[in-house]
Amino acid sequence: MKDTIVVGYGPCGISCAIYLRRYGNDVLVLGKDGGALEKVSNIENYYGISSISGPDLLKQGLKQAHSLGIEVRTREEVLSIEAIDGGFEVVTSVGRYPTRTVMLACGTSRNQWQLGKRFEGYGVSYCATCDGFLYRKKKVALVGSGALMKHELEVLKNLCPDVTVFTDGKPLEEEISPEVKVVPEKITELFGSEKLEGIRTESQSYDIDGCFVALGSASAFTFAKHLGMQTEGNRLVVDDHFQTNIPGIYAGGDTIGGLLQVSKAVSDGALAATAISQFLREKK
Amino acid sequence: MKDTIVVGYGPCGISCAIYLRRYGNDVLVLGKDGGALEKVSNIENYYGISSISGPDLLKQGLKQAHSLGIEVRTREEVLSIEAIDGGFEVVTSVGRYPTRTVMLACGTSRNQWQLGKRFEGYGVSYCATCDGFLYRKKKVALVGSGALMKHELEVLKNLCPDVTVFTDGKPLEEEISPEVKVVPEKITELFGSEKLEGIRTESQSYDIDGCFVALGSASAFTFAKHLGMQTEGNRLVVDDHFQTNIPGIYAGGDTIGGLLQVSKAVSDGALAATAISQFLREKK
Repeated sequence: MKDTIVVGYGPCGISCAIYLRRYGNDVLVLGKDGGALEKVSNIENYYGISSISGPDLLKQGLKQAHSLGIEVRTREEVLSIEAIDGGFEVVTSVGRYPTRTVMLACGTSRNQWQLGKRFEGYGVSYCATCDGFLYRKKKVALVGSGALMKHELEVLKNLCPDVTVFTDGKPLEEEISPEVKVVPEKITELFGSEKLEGIRTESQSYDIDGCFVALGSASAFTFAKHLGMQTEGNRLVVDDHFQTNIPGIYAGGDTIGGLLQVSKAVSDGALAATAISQFLREKK
Repeated sequence: MKDTIVVGYGPCGISCAIYLRRYGNDVLVLGKDGGALEKVSNIENYYGISSISGPDLLKQGLKQAHSLGIEVRTREEVLSIEAIDGGFEVVTSVGRYPTRTVMLACGTSRNQWQLGKRFEGYGVSYCATCDGFLYRKKKVALVGSGALMKHELEVLKNLCPDVTVFTDGKPLEEEISPEVKVVPEKITELFGSEKLEGIRTESQSYDIDGCFVALGSASAFTFAKHLGMQTEGNRLVVDDHFQTNIPGIYAGGDTIGGLLQVSKAVSDGALAATAISQFLREKK
């Protein structure tokens, strides 16, 4: 069991891992990509580095982590985080990792689906593990096309015999079992009076009882929905010690909002590591 | 009149100046030296830079500020900050600079004098401008040997005819007028029953009514005493926007305590700049 798994290898995640390692903890960093920084062509306002591109800064951070002996897996998408005895299990596209604590440094929370907002809690869910049971023997839709969708599908299939995957116009990124129906069209509307009753695509209407949303990659928003973490608009809510309302789960950087800057993300990582270290010491 | 004068050119000060400049403000950075970082031989935990010495990081920060057109005066000790109409006047060893706002990024607050603690407010003062008037026609001691002492002496001389400078065993760094008595010995004790009554040095006792402390260089502690800023132990107290209890005076980095690390100082600077910019916009 790891002491901490850091989700995200941007400035906040790597800074956190550096401090955790320096404090003597066993840490693993997992992430799918470099997030928002990958698209930044020039950073001039990060103290100590006059000018650098986002991708180069990410590269330097990974090199630095490596030189301190920190394990970073950069092509491993985290799909879900589950509570287990004594901590959490982080589920990726590759495996499952038990850990005492989790640091969410995975950038801006996404995945909230505008079309589904009206029916959230009334037929629309972001967590198959949490709500799949409510739709036993019912017709459910699963919206998504990538690894997150496939992960939710595996969970749903055991609970609901009638699952249809709606890719919302995107090509399927993952191979799924051929008996699952796939609707590759763009979704235009969710309808129903009080509760969700169906989905309309460009060409057709489908009667459904429940709709599970697994669009794009898993984000802090997804994990929040899976674990019952408090969110405020787009951001995860943390206390003064960067801890979410779930003890042992911390967050920092863009994930918790505020100034969306490298400097603040780096500091959040260092401060969160200090708090996590304290938490781990008290538990041991 | 400047928009902001930043006191200190370490990571917090320069980061703050970079952001202030980027927000379109007219900023000047003043400082005497690089503070604590000057003695650090190797930093490995600041994200994006695998390994660097404190002096080299300071140099890189100055170069970065220069490349963004920020004026930094690195050999100019700030001696005092005074409230004036519409803002503040920052007094250095070289001149006086009016400014709308001040950012204190001058490292750990020092200057509190253990020997004098017992009589603070009862004969011991850290501000000639504030308390000199209370000692008109009385015998006062001024403790110190550098530019801060000389600055306080200029103020005191106009109020108290009988000033003796105690260097506490240090050589005088500044030339002062020959009519001022100088005791170059180490101070061993301050005595008195309720109020301060005298100073004892290694060889002699001196009856005095008041003692002004101006040891070392001016620090955030000095400015706090001069302006009535709230302190807590060794640190300046600021609100969520890095503002002290004096509107228009902000502080960050080691000056406000917490994690004494480059990453946190850099973030404090960026966040304070954002708040200062907001403050300036509201005033204009």
